[in-house]
Amino acid sequence: MTVHLVGAGPGDPELLTVRAARLISTADVIVHDALADGRILDLAPAHVERIDVGKRPGRATPQEMINALLVHLGSQHERVVRVKGGDPYVFGRGGEEAAALLQAGIHVEVVPGITSAIGVPAAAGIPVTHRGASHAFTVVTGHRERGGATNVNWEALARVGGTIVVLMGVAEREVIARRLMDGGLSPDTPAAAIRFGTRADQSTRRFTLADLATQPLESPTTIVIGAVAALDFSPTTTMSEAI
Amino acid sequence: MTVHLVGAGPGDPELLTVRAARLISTADVIVHDALADGRILDLAPAHVERIDVGKRPGRATPQEMINALLVHLGSQHERVVRVKGGDPYVFGRGGEEAAALLQAGIHVEVVPGITSAIGVPAAAGIPVTHRGASHAFTVVTGHRERGGATNVNWEALARVGGTIVVLMGVAEREVIARRLMDGGLSPDTPAAAIRFGTRADQSTRRFTLADLATQPLESPTTIVIGAVAALDFSPTTTMSEAI
Repeated sequence: MTVHLVGAGPGDPELLTVRAARLISTADVIVHDALADGRILDLAPAHVERIDVGKRPGRATPQEMINALLVHLGSQHERVVRVKGGDPYVFGRGGEEAAALLQAGIHVEVVPGITSAIGVPAAAGIPVTHRGASHAFTVVTGHRERGGATNVNWEALARVGGTIVVLMGVAEREVIARRLMDGGLSPDTPAAAIRFGTRADQSTRRFTLADLATQPLESPTTIVIGAVAALDFSPTTTMSEAI
Repeated sequence: MTVHLVGAGPGDPELLTVRAARLISTADVIVHDALADGRILDLAPAHVERIDVGKRPGRATPQEMINALLVHLGSQHERVVRVKGGDPYVFGRGGEEAAALLQAGIHVEVVPGITSAIGVPAAAGIPVTHRGASHAFTVVTGHRERGGATNVNWEALARVGGTIVVLMGVAEREVIARRLMDGGLSPDTPAAAIRFGTRADQSTRRFTLADLATQPLESPTTIVIGAVAALDFSPTTTMSEAI
């Protein structure tokens, strides 16, 4: 009896790993977040129960309840598949779920997924690293509730010299931009914001760090700051084309 | 006619994306790096030519030659699949290849892969982010040739407050450790080194930043520095178990 913590990637079902697709299609029960694409859960057999614990505006299942649910299901079913957007360990609270399960003596497997932090910029033609432009990248959450924006030393981050990818940063973008500029990052630093990355309705805005605060952005958006944000190696073939 | 720049993930063939597996199995020609697991290329039909351009000690195909080869093949074949370990845009020089192809008018698709920077620590029980321990993570190369170690402000990185993942950092680990401590990171900061991550022969060492310089490490090794390196949510089920 095992609970599999599975990353589902940024949206496009083709970006599931082989392992994730196989686990979902052979699950006894599925516990899932609000996913970007419903086709991912459609891989599961029709009779399999799907429990939605996704966080939505005005309605959030407390993490402790999700942990308890997983422990309960893990003691009853052979194969529990916990599906999360992106990667379970990139701001996915997978560590808390793994810890709760291990403490309860339940077997755990963690299956990494393509993180939006890398896959979404790529889909918009932006490499997070590029010879001559960026030798490092930092992935950071702007989500206050998770202690993100307030616990990161943005001024130091401004001086690292690599790409900065902000997940869940729309609400705090004014603070983030100001602190990065206070840290010495030029107002002219290229930036980009990609909404619905890897999905058919993906859209990209490009601007400068100085203009980040006033961009009309809506969640879910991946924000990229740094020299690479000015690059555009946009794919000329997209995943949605049949192969 | 398209050249697909495909990430193959950290090693375990189950960590290929569905898209990557499909492209490899329907390729007209394959151009590949030195991959961690030969089973990945075995997905290709037996008659398909596989061109090995992997860098090995004492033998390296110049990047310009690889770019030219891809342009040439892309003008002759319907489906050229360029397979890289990890993710094409995480120190994979995918941006240079994409740029060369686009400039030559060749269609390009980039398929992200599971990066070793996230997938390898996960396989060793280490989440790159964890509530209360890390709200950001930086991925950096220690590879001098690629301008990595010398172009990153390690002292600033030490003050960011998140996890640091170093790829290709074995040779420069003494310099890296010293500069991070010069920047204010405590010598007692937990660290871990994972060799052959996600493979059957994976091994993990845990130590402190002060002891990084003297660890007997060999490439390929993923180095994790930060509070999360002391966590151990090691999977109790591994991918190699049949499902």
